[in-house]
Amino acid sequence: MIDQIKHAIQDDYPDDFSHCYGCGRLNQEGYHFRTGWDGDKTVTIYTPEPQHTAIPGFVYGGLIASLIDCHGTGSASLALHRKHGHEPGSTQEPPRFVTASLHVDFVKPTPQGQTLKAVGTPEEIHPKKFKIHTEVYAGDIVCAKAEVTAAVMPATFTANK
Amino acid sequence: MIDQIKHAIQDDYPDDFSHCYGCGRLNQEGYHFRTGWDGDKTVTIYTPEPQHTAIPGFVYGGLIASLIDCHGTGSASLALHRKHGHEPGSTQEPPRFVTASLHVDFVKPTPQGQTLKAVGTPEEIHPKKFKIHTEVYAGDIVCAKAEVTAAVMPATFTANK
Repeated sequence: MIDQIKHAIQDDYPDDFSHCYGCGRLNQEGYHFRTGWDGDKTVTIYTPEPQHTAIPGFVYGGLIASLIDCHGTGSASLALHRKHGHEPGSTQEPPRFVTASLHVDFVKPTPQGQTLKAVGTPEEIHPKKFKIHTEVYAGDIVCAKAEVTAAVMPATFTANK
Repeated sequence: MIDQIKHAIQDDYPDDFSHCYGCGRLNQEGYHFRTGWDGDKTVTIYTPEPQHTAIPGFVYGGLIASLIDCHGTGSASLALHRKHGHEPGSTQEPPRFVTASLHVDFVKPTPQGQTLKAVGTPEEIHPKKFKIHTEVYAGDIVCAKAEVTAAVMPATFTANK
């Protein structure tokens, strides 16, 4: 499995859509999650900060949910972009998705001090909707299993710009 | 509906369990979510910070998921504590829960600059498990609907102390 994301879809989002606290490269205080392809799987890699604790020694579930959320929208964007014949790092602007629903099963306590990898399988369920099946690994251990349904960002989201 | 939480269950968690990034009063950098009763509903109130954006003008879904997560474990603790005859603010130490699963439907974009209220209905589904049905309001608008399954914290969580 890859250890770093060379070309992330978030690197190519238009500036206006790059302020997300989870994955926006222009959000100074956010997590800067970055999602790319590893074959036909999508991968997001992140090492939680020391303050992201549930109880000391274990990672906060809300941080894991945040990782899965942006991994989901990023994976959907990767999948639709590839369907259109494009890869991240090309000059084409990728589609931007929002999360319609998020489901996380926390199957094991997630240890602190390790790099986490969210590994996703995108499934097209509608021309504008993808379901992303995701597992979050700490080393070889699956700590969370998740499903995100992501939809192409509706016009209402940018109507107040 | 109440506008502030006088007695929150998190105020009474033992110090060792008060480092959660979401709801730990001893986590210097966390959100400090606080959950209390409003009749037979549980309520957590939080105003997102300016950096907690999805795209400018709207709140980041991962922050909403985090609010729902800690609201869920806090609500389960409130419910089991009440079942045992105790209310927050008493001298009794409340039970501490972990999140087994989290499901969020993002039903409307959540506007920035407003105070959010998570309003929950705890349902006992097992002597050590509660399902918390939650709606997140921005003003009068329901922006997210959620279900959290919370379980009494297993011994494995504190085995490495």
